[in-house]
Amino acid sequence: MEVVQVLHMNGGVGETSYANNSFVQQKVITMTKPITEDAITKLYCSTYPEEIAIADLGCSSGPNTFFLVSELIKVVDSARQKISQKSPEYQVFLNDLPGNDFNTIFRSLSIFQNKLREQLGPGIGPCFFTGVPGSFYGRLFRKNSLHFVHSSYSLQWLSQVPQGLESNKGNIYMASTSPPNVLKAYYEQFQQDFSLFLKCRSEELVDGGRMVLTFLGRRNDDPSSKECCYIWELLAMALNDMVLEGVIEEQKLNSFNIPQYTPSPAEVKYEVEKEGSFSIDQLEVTEVNWNAYQNETDLSDAFKDGGYNVAKCMRAVAEPLLFSHFGEAIIDEVFRRYREIVAARMSKEKTEFVNVIVSLKKA
Amino acid sequence: MEVVQVLHMNGGVGETSYANNSFVQQKVITMTKPITEDAITKLYCSTYPEEIAIADLGCSSGPNTFFLVSELIKVVDSARQKISQKSPEYQVFLNDLPGNDFNTIFRSLSIFQNKLREQLGPGIGPCFFTGVPGSFYGRLFRKNSLHFVHSSYSLQWLSQVPQGLESNKGNIYMASTSPPNVLKAYYEQFQQDFSLFLKCRSEELVDGGRMVLTFLGRRNDDPSSKECCYIWELLAMALNDMVLEGVIEEQKLNSFNIPQYTPSPAEVKYEVEKEGSFSIDQLEVTEVNWNAYQNETDLSDAFKDGGYNVAKCMRAVAEPLLFSHFGEAIIDEVFRRYREIVAARMSKEKTEFVNVIVSLKKA
Repeated sequence: MEVVQVLHMNGGVGETSYANNSFVQQKVITMTKPITEDAITKLYCSTYPEEIAIADLGCSSGPNTFFLVSELIKVVDSARQKISQKSPEYQVFLNDLPGNDFNTIFRSLSIFQNKLREQLGPGIGPCFFTGVPGSFYGRLFRKNSLHFVHSSYSLQWLSQVPQGLESNKGNIYMASTSPPNVLKAYYEQFQQDFSLFLKCRSEELVDGGRMVLTFLGRRNDDPSSKECCYIWELLAMALNDMVLEGVIEEQKLNSFNIPQYTPSPAEVKYEVEKEGSFSIDQLEVTEVNWNAYQNETDLSDAFKDGGYNVAKCMRAVAEPLLFSHFGEAIIDEVFRRYREIVAARMSKEKTEFVNVIVSLKKA
Repeated sequence: MEVVQVLHMNGGVGETSYANNSFVQQKVITMTKPITEDAITKLYCSTYPEEIAIADLGCSSGPNTFFLVSELIKVVDSARQKISQKSPEYQVFLNDLPGNDFNTIFRSLSIFQNKLREQLGPGIGPCFFTGVPGSFYGRLFRKNSLHFVHSSYSLQWLSQVPQGLESNKGNIYMASTSPPNVLKAYYEQFQQDFSLFLKCRSEELVDGGRMVLTFLGRRNDDPSSKECCYIWELLAMALNDMVLEGVIEEQKLNSFNIPQYTPSPAEVKYEVEKEGSFSIDQLEVTEVNWNAYQNETDLSDAFKDGGYNVAKCMRAVAEPLLFSHFGEAIIDEVFRRYREIVAARMSKEKTEFVNVIVSLKKA
């Protein structure tokens, strides 16, 4: 059941929707825009299809849900105008787990559609929106029914907590002190999940169809490297302090692990090549500061509090997991401590999330 | 804005979802089963398609949402087993207005899918479910993307209250005392809406695609005949009593009209032939008692209270409309009176809803 809880975080139930709708997420979409633009332009210009079916996997519910889709449609519309082609019809599939707040998406749809029509003018073809509930680690769409798949900051979530993490005591994710069998268990779960993801999508995409996937990942070959694990190690610190003070049972902490895997570009490449349905068009790595508001001007002082911002962002991600494992009582205290720990570290060192972006074409 | 409120009733927001999920509605689906079965069987057996895309328009959110879909899939599965054909993949589009509670549908989806798989065995192909928010008086799907369209007890709702009903004083729907221009305004709105519906669906259905549509309707040629208008006349009685007592302003009542049209089979036939995209395979009329629980055994006494049942059913339909026009304060009192009026009439005469069912094939 862990998977459902985890991806709900991604899927946006109330406060838990913050993760995917955060400023970080929007920055990442903007950052990967050149790759996404390139992919959808190539797709459109290869056959000038009369209809384009786009799926956004892990769409959540909030501003970013429509942000990405409108970017894609704008790119296609600009390309078709250059060659005076009639606009294609757009079919947009918004996917997330069944716990996602689709009602909120649907109720803001007409505002979005009107805005898009205003921006793009009367020449724009009809855009049909549908909500698709379900895990992307399984088939979600009919065979050969998609042209373009997008997923941002969702695929690092595993379908479940890996088996065999009993020896990962005191840690809640892969960490510098994790034994090798823990790293292996995490990696194997990633391989299994991502390979299934690729297989399902290859069945659903038309020949020549494309995907752009953004993972929270790492540059380093070491899966327990600081760049991807440190943010969880700091949370583990807060939890371990509370164990020492007797607020949390040690056994409770030892049995808690985050169902995530932050892959390296090489690991992504390896799975894609092994699965065999897709060719890699682009594979890139970028960074975004833990505090995505850094370097933004015109922000109130509240946003400049890096510890607060990061703790808030991570709380949205981690709260559903902590809540279901430890109960509600400890939550506020965990994040109060976490905020302090994070703030202290951010003042001393450069702290960044690493994004692995891959642009794929169905071979 | 009236239309949104009205169809919300159909679309199932909280208590207002009762209408489409009522026992009446389930009885109607069961009653029309032979026609629906015949249509989907003909569709399947004409080409044995590898995938079948089914749309349920006005799906609401509740038990009936899945009841219809499972009936359709069972019929196809039985047909394909007879000829030892591999199961098609199913794509099910559940449509209702954006105010519908899609979250509830999506969260009960996996229970439904597991049950269906249990009933039909491992041979059943994958069923992909999507939610499609929007009015069916406009395009909802890509061109040539549907095989089968179903709509039950939704199409009698107009896209808006007709213009020019100022002279319909004291009435809230077509009634025996409505002037001819009122009947004309209602009929023209029906023609315009239903014709647009047919045009949109003809673009979305593949050649040979089929539709089964059930309207709340009438047998009689007279659009103000008792069989379709009486249930609203009784509600108007309750409201008029409250006007006499000074609880409701007369002007307020005079400006209130229900955006519904209950067509005759001849009117449905005429629009279909005029629009020209579809041929009529079957056109039938059936009746269902106002109190759908009548003749049911094994029911507690509560269900045998016809006045209560009908008032409850109609309240689910009419409350959102009354609420937005008259405000909350009068609602309980209106329906208390309505229940009494209805009970008195039901004890004296036969009271039935008339259903017009049409089975269409894209020419």
